[in-house]
Amino acid sequence: MAPTDPASDATGAPESDLAVARATDPRPIEDVAADLGLSADDVERRGDGVAKLTHAAVREAVGGAAGAGDGASAADAPGELDGTTVLVTGMSPTPKGEGKTVTTVGLGQGLAELGERTAVAVREPSLGPVFGIKGGAAGGGYSQVLPMEAINLHFTGDIHALTSAHNLLAAALDNRLHQGNDAEIDARRVHWPRALDVNDRALRETVVGLGGTASGVPREDEFVITAASELMAVLGLASDLEDLKARIGRIVLAVDADGEPVTPDDLGVTGAAAALLRDAFRPNLVQTVEGVPAFVHGGPFANIAHGTNTLVADRVGAALADYLVTEAGFGADLGAEKFGNIVAREGIVPDVAVVVATVRGAKRHGLEMWPTDFDALAEPDPGAVRAGVDNVAKHVSIAESFGIPTVAAINVFGDDTEAELAALEEAIADRGIPVARSTAYRDGGAGATDLAELVRERAGTGSFSPLYDVDAPIREKIETVAREVYGAAGVEYVDGAADDVERVEGWGYGDLPVCLSKTPYSLSGDAARTGVPEGWTLTIREVTPSAGAGFVVAKTADVMTMPGLPAEPAAEDIDVDADGDVTGLF
Amino acid sequence: MAPTDPASDATGAPESDLAVARATDPRPIEDVAADLGLSADDVERRGDGVAKLTHAAVREAVGGAAGAGDGASAADAPGELDGTTVLVTGMSPTPKGEGKTVTTVGLGQGLAELGERTAVAVREPSLGPVFGIKGGAAGGGYSQVLPMEAINLHFTGDIHALTSAHNLLAAALDNRLHQGNDAEIDARRVHWPRALDVNDRALRETVVGLGGTASGVPREDEFVITAASELMAVLGLASDLEDLKARIGRIVLAVDADGEPVTPDDLGVTGAAAALLRDAFRPNLVQTVEGVPAFVHGGPFANIAHGTNTLVADRVGAALADYLVTEAGFGADLGAEKFGNIVAREGIVPDVAVVVATVRGAKRHGLEMWPTDFDALAEPDPGAVRAGVDNVAKHVSIAESFGIPTVAAINVFGDDTEAELAALEEAIADRGIPVARSTAYRDGGAGATDLAELVRERAGTGSFSPLYDVDAPIREKIETVAREVYGAAGVEYVDGAADDVERVEGWGYGDLPVCLSKTPYSLSGDAARTGVPEGWTLTIREVTPSAGAGFVVAKTADVMTMPGLPAEPAAEDIDVDADGDVTGLF
Repeated sequence: MAPTDPASDATGAPESDLAVARATDPRPIEDVAADLGLSADDVERRGDGVAKLTHAAVREAVGGAAGAGDGASAADAPGELDGTTVLVTGMSPTPKGEGKTVTTVGLGQGLAELGERTAVAVREPSLGPVFGIKGGAAGGGYSQVLPMEAINLHFTGDIHALTSAHNLLAAALDNRLHQGNDAEIDARRVHWPRALDVNDRALRETVVGLGGTASGVPREDEFVITAASELMAVLGLASDLEDLKARIGRIVLAVDADGEPVTPDDLGVTGAAAALLRDAFRPNLVQTVEGVPAFVHGGPFANIAHGTNTLVADRVGAALADYLVTEAGFGADLGAEKFGNIVAREGIVPDVAVVVATVRGAKRHGLEMWPTDFDALAEPDPGAVRAGVDNVAKHVSIAESFGIPTVAAINVFGDDTEAELAALEEAIADRGIPVARSTAYRDGGAGATDLAELVRERAGTGSFSPLYDVDAPIREKIETVAREVYGAAGVEYVDGAADDVERVEGWGYGDLPVCLSKTPYSLSGDAARTGVPEGWTLTIREVTPSAGAGFVVAKTADVMTMPGLPAEPAAEDIDVDADGDVTGLF
Repeated sequence: MAPTDPASDATGAPESDLAVARATDPRPIEDVAADLGLSADDVERRGDGVAKLTHAAVREAVGGAAGAGDGASAADAPGELDGTTVLVTGMSPTPKGEGKTVTTVGLGQGLAELGERTAVAVREPSLGPVFGIKGGAAGGGYSQVLPMEAINLHFTGDIHALTSAHNLLAAALDNRLHQGNDAEIDARRVHWPRALDVNDRALRETVVGLGGTASGVPREDEFVITAASELMAVLGLASDLEDLKARIGRIVLAVDADGEPVTPDDLGVTGAAAALLRDAFRPNLVQTVEGVPAFVHGGPFANIAHGTNTLVADRVGAALADYLVTEAGFGADLGAEKFGNIVAREGIVPDVAVVVATVRGAKRHGLEMWPTDFDALAEPDPGAVRAGVDNVAKHVSIAESFGIPTVAAINVFGDDTEAELAALEEAIADRGIPVARSTAYRDGGAGATDLAELVRERAGTGSFSPLYDVDAPIREKIETVAREVYGAAGVEYVDGAADDVERVEGWGYGDLPVCLSKTPYSLSGDAARTGVPEGWTLTIREVTPSAGAGFVVAKTADVMTMPGLPAEPAAEDIDVDADGDVTGLF
């Protein structure tokens, strides 16, 4: 069996993502750009098969500022985007994920098979997880984006640029503390952490500024993984460079002696941070294994931030393609809710949504088991699968509550039994939900044409609107999400969260949308509760402004913003040979 | 006066480096590559005017491993490199520098004016200084490398890749401490810091691993700027990817309970770190303002490391061009000494050297003033200039002690008086040193043709050999550098440095060359002493192995490996406009 023939084993399943990637002969990236009507001058090569759009091309495609840049613009701002926007979301996932990226890429390829001019948009992989827990973040099998090795290792440097800009702001803040502190920054109330794109638990809680008077002011500090930086969310929502600067300038870095916010504008370093991000703002263009244009851009934490790829990539894709397929993090309660209530206000509205369901996911919700009990999930159990469809239906109804026509996609895994697949498909259809299977991992776009036809049929049949008015009080907006999306019976505020709300509204951030941080593994606030939990209360523990990103974060639990490495990190399996070929990424 | 006409002011001097850069119409980078006999397939575009050579092109140009990769190979290994290697070094500099990069680029352009196929090689700028103290690191005026903004901001991401690889090693080490510590790492003796490419004094001394049992093992830690990472030196000296891996694998990260080194090989993460550096290893090709091919690659600290651009860029340049002009950090006592005793053993030998002298530098050494007393240096004083030539002559003799024919270049500044320039030129010539003025900043290559002719005349008239045998004991090698290069009367070991030598030799690193860390502002160990100090003793305070880089570092003072930001950082002047154009870099 030749290593360059990935489809030659008995089951017809790909040998490995790497083998598929290496067996593919990619098109010149200028040809891919031409599919979207972009000329060679509109893109700048960043290695083989990778390009960044020029600032001019972005402006030509989508104009200047999309929304008002303050999170308060009208939901229907992007009337000028001709393409159909397909939002891929999912049921409450297991920790291994239900294959949303594979389905996104596969659906894009499926629509292309139907003759539609299509682009997909997915997030950039973070190095932390790549070297931590084995697994790529660029789809898989015959539904992945290329060049896989480059995308997973540094790519075009966007995340590194964010790390640099983030830490420049931190250094400027500590420098001000050191050089006389005329801004009267309270060293006990510095909210801005430092950031690194690595899984490194030893950096979660630190003390900096030790070593005497020449080495700064001692204080407690923490590091977050770069994807958790507010700057990543800023990049993800900025409409142009001017908007990017305005957003950076108003980030709340710390609090001064009077209890007022200290911002990059106060420190005079907004322009420098923006200069570091000038290229990171430009969308990256690559291609899928089947040569469909793919934007891989941004990647904010899908927990304390909105967790989608960038607004600018989505807008460019929707402007240039007939169909843009984009994904949102976790289930519809998180990613789709945030897309609808946060991202859509900045200038992109979903015309149709896809809720990805799997046999494994449905079984977990039918069996009421702990999300990490994967061994138990391996046992075939069509009855459990059927029982778990309540969860799928609830996620479909969340997307529909925004007025987005929604279909279900069953992402087929190699070890799913036909009995379970049939049970899942029938139970979904029984609830009146349009459903199609996707075998895009194994078959590429050809495995997603049924889904593509369903999506094409339903797209544009709804009328989108966000669930709440941004001018409503913060508590009212949180209440709306808790009750109408999560299905909570009520909301309680603990640990000073009620005071937080008052402070945030006092600072003038009361009219921003809210971004709730909650476990993705349950519709409720408790990861152990499966199905569609009822009669529970959502607990809010902390409320903080992400004034640059343009939302107010409400945390329901401690959020792990710096992962750790496992006992046997994936790094131990990764290697590079004398030719520069990398192994062990998948 | 049009902003695009940089040479239109009264004196004929450039308006600004940025204006020169913007007024230039660069050649397609493939055409620049063709000057060196490289085809379009040999380079991979990384943005407009920037390319990385492919691994295959590097191998084709210089073959596989250059030296033995262990610092012990023969000095004359690179017999196969056809081109003439010109090493640009300098007198003892002032903190503002004597224009070594401008002279390097200008001389390259001057040789091209004479019809020679020429390439230059300079270091990659670090973001820390770019945002700290105003000033670029890519030459200036009509002797700079382009595209200036991209080179100064992220460039091809090499330094970011080093940051990632460095911190992956750190995370793997702390993870091992946390996950049971079967390697028996002594948490009190972790030598491997963390690294960031930022000026941030608050990170000099830290405590990490706080926050309880889930967040690692508490210990003291420090951050260095990425250029000071041993990995940067490793990248700078590796001959190919296999050699890069071998070097990474033997880095001493920490010491175990038995006092033995703990390495990346012990942790199983050598391959992962090398994978992160696979593209960083590939030389970056850009061009000068006059279209001469320029390699901008690497940038190790010129203090605790050897401080040149990469061996691979130098070797490729010397293989493909008739003349390669490359620079070494600080004066000949530091950069040229390390080039001769460390870099040359890995496979590149200088055929001729240039010692850059300035009116300002000579005056400082004639007046015996503190290196930062710039106001006093502004006063014209030909007598002081003449008196300072002792220092220039000593640096010339250091280069010649390696058997390298050496000339002096006077880098002319706009405010130099003719009386001072004439005094400097005559005093140098009076000592029998070939000398030429260079006005390359103002005039580009045309201002460096006299220097180019002198260089061409002298090149290859010597016979190179390092100053010591690598098999000699560490103390003997340090003694050789102290006496024969610095002019010290003797060497003393304090603070346990004598024990350090025994430990390093006990670990088996006794046969590596030595890399002395000393103030660049004086030939002696005391920055305040000017001219050619005599009768002094060099104090060695610490001796540590850089086993991956392949040398033993001997520190003569505390070395600042993490700079701080000044009270008014350059970052406050940097901005980006709506088109992505950056201002304030120069």
